[in-house]
Amino acid sequence: MMLKTHACGTLSKAQVGQTVSLNGWVQRRRDLGGVLFIDLRDRTGIIQIVFNPDFSGDALAIADRARNEYVLAVRGTVVERDAETVNANLATGEIEVRVTEIEIMNAAKTPPFPIEDGVEVDESLRLKYRYLDLRRPEMQKTLMLRSKAAKVFRDFLDGEGFIDVETPILTKSTPEGARDYLVPSRVHPGEFFALPQSPQIFKQLLMVSGLERYYQIARCFRDEDLRADRQPEFTQVDIETSFLSQDQLLELMEQLVARLFRETNNVDIPTPFQRITYADAMNKYGSDKPDLRFGLEMEDITDIVRQSEVKVFASIAAGGGVVKALNAKGCASWSRKELDDLQPFAARYGGKGLAWVTVKEGEWRGPIVKFFKPEEIAALTEKLGVEEGDLLLFSADKKKVVADVLGNLRLKIGKELGLIDESAFKFAWVVDFPLLGWDEEAKRYVAEHHPFTRPNEDDLHLFESDPGQIRAQAYDLVLNGYEVGGGSMRIFKRDVQEKMFKALGFSLEEAYEKFGFLLDAFDYGTPPHGGIAFGFDRLVMLMSGRTNLRETIAFPKTASATDLLTDAPSEVDISQLQQLHIRTLPKPTKQAEPAAAGAAPTAQS
Amino acid sequence: MMLKTHACGTLSKAQVGQTVSLNGWVQRRRDLGGVLFIDLRDRTGIIQIVFNPDFSGDALAIADRARNEYVLAVRGTVVERDAETVNANLATGEIEVRVTEIEIMNAAKTPPFPIEDGVEVDESLRLKYRYLDLRRPEMQKTLMLRSKAAKVFRDFLDGEGFIDVETPILTKSTPEGARDYLVPSRVHPGEFFALPQSPQIFKQLLMVSGLERYYQIARCFRDEDLRADRQPEFTQVDIETSFLSQDQLLELMEQLVARLFRETNNVDIPTPFQRITYADAMNKYGSDKPDLRFGLEMEDITDIVRQSEVKVFASIAAGGGVVKALNAKGCASWSRKELDDLQPFAARYGGKGLAWVTVKEGEWRGPIVKFFKPEEIAALTEKLGVEEGDLLLFSADKKKVVADVLGNLRLKIGKELGLIDESAFKFAWVVDFPLLGWDEEAKRYVAEHHPFTRPNEDDLHLFESDPGQIRAQAYDLVLNGYEVGGGSMRIFKRDVQEKMFKALGFSLEEAYEKFGFLLDAFDYGTPPHGGIAFGFDRLVMLMSGRTNLRETIAFPKTASATDLLTDAPSEVDISQLQQLHIRTLPKPTKQAEPAAAGAAPTAQS
Repeated sequence: MMLKTHACGTLSKAQVGQTVSLNGWVQRRRDLGGVLFIDLRDRTGIIQIVFNPDFSGDALAIADRARNEYVLAVRGTVVERDAETVNANLATGEIEVRVTEIEIMNAAKTPPFPIEDGVEVDESLRLKYRYLDLRRPEMQKTLMLRSKAAKVFRDFLDGEGFIDVETPILTKSTPEGARDYLVPSRVHPGEFFALPQSPQIFKQLLMVSGLERYYQIARCFRDEDLRADRQPEFTQVDIETSFLSQDQLLELMEQLVARLFRETNNVDIPTPFQRITYADAMNKYGSDKPDLRFGLEMEDITDIVRQSEVKVFASIAAGGGVVKALNAKGCASWSRKELDDLQPFAARYGGKGLAWVTVKEGEWRGPIVKFFKPEEIAALTEKLGVEEGDLLLFSADKKKVVADVLGNLRLKIGKELGLIDESAFKFAWVVDFPLLGWDEEAKRYVAEHHPFTRPNEDDLHLFESDPGQIRAQAYDLVLNGYEVGGGSMRIFKRDVQEKMFKALGFSLEEAYEKFGFLLDAFDYGTPPHGGIAFGFDRLVMLMSGRTNLRETIAFPKTASATDLLTDAPSEVDISQLQQLHIRTLPKPTKQAEPAAAGAAPTAQS
Repeated sequence: MMLKTHACGTLSKAQVGQTVSLNGWVQRRRDLGGVLFIDLRDRTGIIQIVFNPDFSGDALAIADRARNEYVLAVRGTVVERDAETVNANLATGEIEVRVTEIEIMNAAKTPPFPIEDGVEVDESLRLKYRYLDLRRPEMQKTLMLRSKAAKVFRDFLDGEGFIDVETPILTKSTPEGARDYLVPSRVHPGEFFALPQSPQIFKQLLMVSGLERYYQIARCFRDEDLRADRQPEFTQVDIETSFLSQDQLLELMEQLVARLFRETNNVDIPTPFQRITYADAMNKYGSDKPDLRFGLEMEDITDIVRQSEVKVFASIAAGGGVVKALNAKGCASWSRKELDDLQPFAARYGGKGLAWVTVKEGEWRGPIVKFFKPEEIAALTEKLGVEEGDLLLFSADKKKVVADVLGNLRLKIGKELGLIDESAFKFAWVVDFPLLGWDEEAKRYVAEHHPFTRPNEDDLHLFESDPGQIRAQAYDLVLNGYEVGGGSMRIFKRDVQEKMFKALGFSLEEAYEKFGFLLDAFDYGTPPHGGIAFGFDRLVMLMSGRTNLRETIAFPKTASATDLLTDAPSEVDISQLQQLHIRTLPKPTKQAEPAAAGAAPTAQS
C-alpha cells in the first residue's frame, strides 16, 4: 500500500517541487480534453490532483475508473498552478499535484446524498448513513471542536489539581428525580442496576473521601420524553470541590470558561461574569436563563395602575397579581395583524391576553388608552422611557404567568428587531435560587435543586417561619439564554440537613430509607463542599453555532430514542431474557402513552 | 468558615514565620502535659499542629473536643521544631503550626477501621465504607496515578492528531462475543438496548467517516462471571487509525507507552519493544502473554527422545505430541516433597505428570534416568545447557497441554528462584496471531480476534488450502506477563471479507444478518484502517504495583457483581417495570448457576 506522506489540506507552495504521497477520497472529477482533474479530500481539506498523459502514464487509465468517494493513494509532484487556474476558494488553490502513481485503495457505491456542507437532506437519512454524514466537513469540524473543548476542560482542571475519577455506570436506582434506565442483573434474580442520571452521590462521597477536587466528563442517562435539546444519554463536565466558598468556586469556573472559549473559539470572554439573582432575572427578563445579549427589560407597573380605570389591571393588582410592561422601541408601526397575533402568542404561555399601546405623532393609541388617567400616563412615560414610535405591551396576571408571557415576548421581539448580536457570547451567573418550592399537588415543599443543597446562612431562621423564602447557595451558568451549567454548595452539617428533611416533610427514618448510605457517610467527617456540572453537549452546540444537540453528537438518537444507524433498541433472543430472569409483557395494541416527564435533563449538579 | 490558605503536606521551612490557615482531618491526637498535638491530614499529607495555653487561648479547649477524623479549620504560625523533636518520617517533620484559632467544621463517628496505609481489614468492609477506604493515602495515590495516566494518554494522542469521540452506551446487542448487559426500552415495548462490550463497530465506522485518528477512554461492559481481574464495567483506551501500516501503528503506540511511563512512573522504557511471534511465545514460554522479566525458556526435545526407551516420550512423539523441558538452574537440591508436589501442579494445568532429573555430583538422578541412552544424555546436555546442580523438568503431551504445564511451571520457578526483577516493566508485542481457530464443538473455524481482522497478505492463498495456518495482522501488548493491550489491522476489501466469512462458514446472507449496517458502510469507500485498545484498569494496576483491579477503581464491584456501598443491584418498584413493559420471572429456589463464560473481557480491539 502506498501510504501518505502528507495530508491533502496541509499542502501549500512550500512543497512545490516535492514528491508527495496522498491518501483520500474523491470529492469530484472532471475530464477536460483527456486530462483528468480530481479533487482529493481528507479531514484536513481538499487538493486538486492531475492526471495527464504527458506525465501520468498508466495512472491515468486507472484514475479514470475512480468515482466519487473512491479511496485513492497517489504519488506525484507538487506544482504551482498557472495564474489563471488559481482557485481562490480553496486553501490549496495555488497548487496542484501531478500524479505519476496511483492505487485505488477501495471503491465506493454512490452515496445517498452529496458529501458536502449545507446539504439539504432529510435528517433521518443522514442518521441512517451517519458514517457518510460525518464525512461532511462541517460535521468533522464540530467533532473536532468537541474534542478540543474536552481537552481544554481537562487541561485547566488538571492544572488546578482536580482529579479525574470514573464513577460507576451500573449503579443504584434513585428514589427521586427523573426516570431511570434499568439493567436487569443476571447474578441476582429480580434485581436491577440503574444507569446514573448524574454522578451526584458519588461525587459527594469523593469529597467525604477527602479527594478535595474531583472532575469527570461523565455520561448520564435520563429516560425522559425527548425534545430537540434532549438525548437519552448526554455528557456533563462534572465537578466537585471541598473547602471553597461559593465565590471562590464561581471565580475558578469563570477562569475555566474564559480559557475554554479563548482556546477553542478564539474569543475573549471578560470576567468576572455578571451575577444576577433569581428574583431579578425573573422580574426583569421573566426567565431564570435570560438572554443578556440585549436589554428590553420588563418593568413592574403594578403600583402605577393599582387604582386604574383599566379594570383588569386594578383587579389583578388587588388580587395579588402583577402588571408588567415591555417597551418595544420603534414598534408603533406594527400592523394590526401583528398586534392581533400577540394574543395567541400570550395564550401559548398561559396568558389571558396582552394589552398594547402605540405612540404615534405624540399620541397614545390603543383600546385601553382611554381608561388611563393623565397621571398614569405620566408615570408610565417616565417608568418605561416612552418616546415617539414606541409600542408598549402589558401583561397582568399571576407573577409566573406574566413572567412567561413577557419573557417569551421579549425574546421574540429581540429576535425580530435584530437586537441580538449573534456573534456574542454573553455569560451570567444566576444566583440565590429559592431552596424550596411549594408542590400544590403534594401539599408540601420540594427541593428546587436537590435535598442536599445548602441554604444561605442568613436565611436559616426562615426554616421555622417561611421556608419558601429561603435562598439556596445554588447557581446556574447562563449563556445567550441557555442554561449551560448549574450546581450548588451542599449541606454538610447534620443539624441543617435535619431541618431540610423536616421542611421537605420527611421523617429521619424516611430520609434514611431514601438516602441511607449517603447519610451514613456524612457522619464520618464531611468537609464543606460544593460543585457544578456543565452541559457539555449544549455548550458544544453553542460554541459551534449549531441549534440542535444531534449535530454535536457523533451517533445521536432520534426524538423517539432510537438509533437509526444500528437500529437500536431491538428485539433480543428469549434465551437472553431468561438468563436475566425477566420476560416482556404482551405488546400493547397501541403504543403506551409515555408518562409525564420528571425533572428536565439539564446540567444540574 | 475559615478556608485554607495552604495544603497540609506542602508546608516546609519556607513558610516559617508565616500565618497560615489549614483545613483537614484529625489523623491522631496526643495530650502531653496540657499541650495538645494533632496530626492534621489532607490529600497532600500530614502536618503537626500544636495547641498550647501559651499561645492558643480558647482554641485549646475547642481542639480538645476533636477526635479522629473530625474536620478542622485552624489558623496559626509555622515554626521550626526543636532539633530533638524533628520527625524524619514525616515530609513536614521539621516544622509545626502553633494554632491561635480553630473551628470544628464537622464531627466524625469513630471509623470502622483505621485511616492508614497497609490496614488489614476485610475487603468487604472496605468496600461498604469505600468513602473512608479512599481516605487512606495509598488509595488516594492510586486514584491520582490513574488520573495522571489518563491525562498523559490524552495529551499524547491529542498531540498526534487523534480526535476524542464519544460513542453510545445505549446501543445494539451484538450477536457474537460475550454476554451483553441489556436495557429495556420504555418507548419501544419488547425492545432492548445493549451496553457496549467495546466501541469496536463505532470506531470502525468513524474510520469510514474519514476521521482518520480516533480515541476514547471508553467504559465497556461484559456480563461475565468475575475473577480477581475482571469487573462488569471496565475502561479501555480505545484507538483507531486509517492509512497506517501495522508497523507504523505499533511504533506510534510504543512512543505513547514510553511517554506514559516516563511522565507517570518516572521510568524510561526503551523502544522499540521486543516483537515475538505468537508461535515463538507459545514455544518458548508456553503463553501468549509471556513474562519476559526472566529467561528460563522451554526447549523442544521431541526430536532427541523420539526413539527413546522412555516409553511415554517416544509414544507421545510418535502420536504427534511434543516433549519439552525446562532447566531449573541450581534446583537439584529440591526436596523429595518439592519434587512430588510438581505432579499435582502439572495436573492442575491438564498434564498427566512431570518427569524430572537432578544433576548432583556429576550424575543424573531420577526415575527416568536409567532409560536414557548416553547419546540422548549428551544431546540433552547440549540442548539444555546442563550443569552441576540443575533440575531438568520434562512434560510430554499435546502441544497445548505442554505449553500450559511448563509455561505455568516456568512462572512458579521464576518467582521462587527470585529470577524476576519486580521493579522492571518489560514490554513486548506478540504478533502473527492465528487468524482462525478450529472450534471442535461447532466443527467450524471461528475468528480468534474478530471477523474483521485482516489476514497477513502473504497468507491469503491459505484460505483455500489451510485456513488454520493463516496469520492475522493482530497484536497484543504484553507487560510482565499480563496482556495490557491488543488490536488488529481490519479487513477493508470486500473480496477478503467474503473469503473470511466463507472460512467462518457464514453465507453472505448470514453475515448481513449479523453485521448488516457495518457491511453496508464498508461499501462506501472504506480506508485501510486498524487499531488497538489498552486495558486501562490493568495498566493502572501494574503501574501502581497493585495485584487486584479493585484497588485501581474508585467504586468497584465484588466478584458477584454487586456494589457493597450503594447496595446495587436492588429491587425496584413494580411500576417502574410496568413502564418498561417487562416483569421479573418467579425467583428460583436457589440462585441459578451462572452459565459458562464467553470471551474474556480483556482489552481486545
